[in-house]
Amino acid sequence: MLTSRTLNELLGATVFMKAEQFQRGGAFKFRGAYNKISQLEDPVALIAYSSGNHAQAVALVARIKGLPATIVMPEDAPAVKLRAVKEYGADVITYDPVSEDRGEIAARLVTERGADLIPPYDDPQVMAGAGTSAMELIDEVGALDVLVVCIGGGGLIAGCATAAHSMSPGIRVIGVEPEDANDTALSMAAGKRVVIDAPRTEADGLKVITPGVLTFPIIQRLVESVVTVTGPEIVDAMAFLFERMSLVVEPSGAVALAAAMAGRVNLEGKRVGIIISGGNIGPERFCRLVSSPWNNQHD
Amino acid sequence: MLTSRTLNELLGATVFMKAEQFQRGGAFKFRGAYNKISQLEDPVALIAYSSGNHAQAVALVARIKGLPATIVMPEDAPAVKLRAVKEYGADVITYDPVSEDRGEIAARLVTERGADLIPPYDDPQVMAGAGTSAMELIDEVGALDVLVVCIGGGGLIAGCATAAHSMSPGIRVIGVEPEDANDTALSMAAGKRVVIDAPRTEADGLKVITPGVLTFPIIQRLVESVVTVTGPEIVDAMAFLFERMSLVVEPSGAVALAAAMAGRVNLEGKRVGIIISGGNIGPERFCRLVSSPWNNQHD
Repeated sequence: MLTSRTLNELLGATVFMKAEQFQRGGAFKFRGAYNKISQLEDPVALIAYSSGNHAQAVALVARIKGLPATIVMPEDAPAVKLRAVKEYGADVITYDPVSEDRGEIAARLVTERGADLIPPYDDPQVMAGAGTSAMELIDEVGALDVLVVCIGGGGLIAGCATAAHSMSPGIRVIGVEPEDANDTALSMAAGKRVVIDAPRTEADGLKVITPGVLTFPIIQRLVESVVTVTGPEIVDAMAFLFERMSLVVEPSGAVALAAAMAGRVNLEGKRVGIIISGGNIGPERFCRLVSSPWNNQHD
Repeated sequence: MLTSRTLNELLGATVFMKAEQFQRGGAFKFRGAYNKISQLEDPVALIAYSSGNHAQAVALVARIKGLPATIVMPEDAPAVKLRAVKEYGADVITYDPVSEDRGEIAARLVTERGADLIPPYDDPQVMAGAGTSAMELIDEVGALDVLVVCIGGGGLIAGCATAAHSMSPGIRVIGVEPEDANDTALSMAAGKRVVIDAPRTEADGLKVITPGVLTFPIIQRLVESVVTVTGPEIVDAMAFLFERMSLVVEPSGAVALAAAMAGRVNLEGKRVGIIISGGNIGPERFCRLVSSPWNNQHD
């Protein structure tokens, strides 16, 4: 858990950040993967499909448990994430995200190898594991008025909202998405799961086209609202974390803070928890993002 | 205190890093400045000359103590450090480091304003304050075989070596300098304080032309050896900290780790403490360094 006097002054709030970039594998995903895999009966091998952080988490848990793992990753996954998965000892199968269906590839591997498929978010044990992030935060700092959490498939916020409402009654849980990956915001407005076009956001961990079957009802029940942030707002938050807190955070990891810094949530005078969901970004990509025209197109 | 399984595997050692980038002001300098200023008798104002981290530390302590502060900084000090000093509320006087003498400017201000000059390193209370970094590290992790510390004026290593030898008898303390700021290495070889030409290293916190009058005898007595690292080795360490540990560290702050990673010190099987001395670097400068030809000129 990290704090910043500068951030508190900027927001007029007392902010507690849970730093999941320091979790094993560099993101919150280890929590769900470990919880899920630990409860499998007699596993012989593991399969996962993921653009990155979930892949690393499953590869790492597989190594810890002494199980072989195969990870199905898109060809265009960030290099630092591909490299980390291989270094953890997992097999990597890449696919073309435009022409191939990763679900089919994974299903075939499950049949061929008798492996267990570890879902990235739409699973009770994966959600429960992810929720230990908010659980630890509130356990450490006490009751909060507001908790701000990014949304990809919704496993992190579903687990965190469940833990937060149980430990800090009356807490307001706010979800945040990149503006072009706003499937959950649209689904909340529609009252049902909406499917969007493939998002192009740099927040690669949040490129999901529709909320999970299991995560969405929990979000409807426990999340007060879902707001969106622009690309430049995400980069501003990454640059703040870099310059003022000496922290490296990937775009997805900075989305919740970006919403707070951009004034999307009223935090004045509040005790606020922000989940920084991960830090897996290489220097090259970080530098491209903070120096890109994308970062100057403030709208 | 931070650890990395990847780093331990890489070095074949058990490494404990003291993360001074998370200290107030973003570097270890707060420790010495606070200790010194707290012991002044009836201070009315503070003066310091510094290229950066000491300046920030004095400005910050002045604010905490409610004292006016004037900081004499070179025109070419990193923008992020100039900005932080001003944000802490201190007056900044810039000078041309080629044609002007910062000591004279500061002495004039001391006379004019009745202010106390806070030295950056060559002072017993500043050294003692800096030494609390190693004190806290050993207090937290227990006895160490080796402690690796960067050397600018020598205040950090003098204080840390004093604390380390007292708390962890038999510890080997190794100093590290950038290769073109090797005044202490040359002085150790000569057995007396040697003056070098103005260094051009990117490790701006370590640009010192001769060891301190007070720090050098302590270094001679308590530091086993002083090794040097190249610019590219410093950048490699910065990139490792960024990519594998999600940490932003300035060049000076990465110098001790660079020596470990470059094999300058035999650490095999040892319990090793490394002081990461500071993190004050902006994204622009970080990106220029990691993408510069300097980083590809491995020698």
